[in-house]
Amino acid sequence: MTNQNRQWILARRPVGEIKDGDLVFRNDPIPTPGRGEVVVKTEWLSLDPTNRLWMSDIPQYMPPVALGAPMRGIFCGTVIKSASDSIAEGAVVMGLGTWSDYAVTPAAMVSVVPEIPGVPRKDVFGQLFLVGPTAYFGLLDIGAPKIGETLVVSGAAGAVGSITGQLGRAWGCKTVGIAGGKDKCAALTRDYGFDHAIDYKSENVAARLKQICPEGVDIYFDNVGGETLNTLLMQMNLFGRIVQCGMISVYDADGAGAAPSNYPMILMQRLKVQGFIVTDYAARYPESFRALAKLRLEGKMNWQYHDIVGLENADNAVRMLFKGQNTGKLIVKVADPA
Amino acid sequence: MTNQNRQWILARRPVGEIKDGDLVFRNDPIPTPGRGEVVVKTEWLSLDPTNRLWMSDIPQYMPPVALGAPMRGIFCGTVIKSASDSIAEGAVVMGLGTWSDYAVTPAAMVSVVPEIPGVPRKDVFGQLFLVGPTAYFGLLDIGAPKIGETLVVSGAAGAVGSITGQLGRAWGCKTVGIAGGKDKCAALTRDYGFDHAIDYKSENVAARLKQICPEGVDIYFDNVGGETLNTLLMQMNLFGRIVQCGMISVYDADGAGAAPSNYPMILMQRLKVQGFIVTDYAARYPESFRALAKLRLEGKMNWQYHDIVGLENADNAVRMLFKGQNTGKLIVKVADPA
Repeated sequence: MTNQNRQWILARRPVGEIKDGDLVFRNDPIPTPGRGEVVVKTEWLSLDPTNRLWMSDIPQYMPPVALGAPMRGIFCGTVIKSASDSIAEGAVVMGLGTWSDYAVTPAAMVSVVPEIPGVPRKDVFGQLFLVGPTAYFGLLDIGAPKIGETLVVSGAAGAVGSITGQLGRAWGCKTVGIAGGKDKCAALTRDYGFDHAIDYKSENVAARLKQICPEGVDIYFDNVGGETLNTLLMQMNLFGRIVQCGMISVYDADGAGAAPSNYPMILMQRLKVQGFIVTDYAARYPESFRALAKLRLEGKMNWQYHDIVGLENADNAVRMLFKGQNTGKLIVKVADPA
Repeated sequence: MTNQNRQWILARRPVGEIKDGDLVFRNDPIPTPGRGEVVVKTEWLSLDPTNRLWMSDIPQYMPPVALGAPMRGIFCGTVIKSASDSIAEGAVVMGLGTWSDYAVTPAAMVSVVPEIPGVPRKDVFGQLFLVGPTAYFGLLDIGAPKIGETLVVSGAAGAVGSITGQLGRAWGCKTVGIAGGKDKCAALTRDYGFDHAIDYKSENVAARLKQICPEGVDIYFDNVGGETLNTLLMQMNLFGRIVQCGMISVYDADGAGAAPSNYPMILMQRLKVQGFIVTDYAARYPESFRALAKLRLEGKMNWQYHDIVGLENADNAVRMLFKGQNTGKLIVKVADPA
């Protein structure tokens, strides 16, 4: 079969953890683009916590993936067929596609990968594209950090969390990272410049925070939700800001554990809690690209990958995110560039 | 006993509803002011939901009232003794005092009642002083209303809620008020200009909101918390704002029912939720006084009182707030001006 296009299809909405059979791996013909669409030969696939959300049908920020459709993913590759006026064949693009060797997607869902001097294409896609702006705009626009303030980041060893911590440091904050396990916590202070690390698996987060941050917390950048969020609500200073970036602890749980009993502290401490999705900031991406590239080239921005090889491994790999098994940005190499 | 100073003393922290004996009524000597303090002969006492919070020892925005101390209250009266350089004897002041015939309080906790042309002193104290700025700054600064947006207010027949609705209308919003009972809901549309009223006691709030606001809700001004907040979280439009002004439904419950299970909608809909206390805006009160007085003099701002006569009735009267029994600003006439 020369016309091979392996794809992961969402066969069933996961209940709790993703299980075998929720996604099925299938061979389909290489698609032809409809009007305004492009077909992209996938080079890399990014695996992200939000993928789990898209598999569910709980209320969310874009339509869930339809049952029987290819799984939606953030990807990068070369346009091999274009029926769009805006993107030509041969263009290297990144954006929203599917978990496929050859993905068909509206041209409006992708953009040409910009050339950024000194930054390899893998980093432009894997770190600068969505991960970087998520950390950058969430912290800058919602967190509004001031020099000398205390920033706590959960999911701190993850792709977004590790960049958030380094941005907080660059902007003059004291930074505290929360992650699960000794190795990740070691990485927080060693690789990502956090002033302190808290291991939520072996330490009492509330007690450690009181010890490390007797001055209280000004900004909480929340990637996890659930119990950690509830704990932080009790530690926030007057007029503190909670950047509600993600709630990975509740995506698998279909909403259970999502209700923070300390919610009234929002009133008592006059907190601002604000949710955001990085695509809200699409018009300003170049600003974050420039800032992050500058820090990177100055040696002030570290990032890492957890590399997976082969589209066939995407299903098992995405589950690592919810078990805290990846270290660094989880990315799947699907094929060499076209 | 010429030296009579009747006072309500917090004898016991209420568990659930305020009960007889939580507050005790006692005769004490008229106090003498310490350095920087004034003694005020109370004319009016304002009864407010936040009083219940001050009686408890849950974490809150100022220290709880100490057991054995006079109950804290928002009051208005004449300074009969001053040991302060900033406030003279004879000044008519309003601010934080106690539930006493003669209250001793730091001069910094009170301010001279401003003369506002055309607005009687009772209104300056009862409506413009704290109620008005709460509605005004909460809606303006956090709600950030735009013409044509939809504003939902809970506790809408209450002192803050009724002004909030009228400000929303003045600023070009569609206004929906939620209150308990037929009479209050009739008042919402008849007296306070709300476009629609929802009776949470006899109607399904979610279903009625979907019917009245198929366009969704842009601003939710929350005075009640609890189940109504949880319902509204599911109705908010993208980038909606929740003004977290009060949570009267949970003050009596010592935190139970305060956890909104729909919290993740803050992320999904990119909501901003912000708590505030009116005193955060003290420096800007004159702005709200001017705005509200202007609307009042133009006949565009209605308000009402629920008048109680006699300090001895304050204990029973404050309980009305939590049973939804007051209609309009609940205020106690303690004595004629000194």
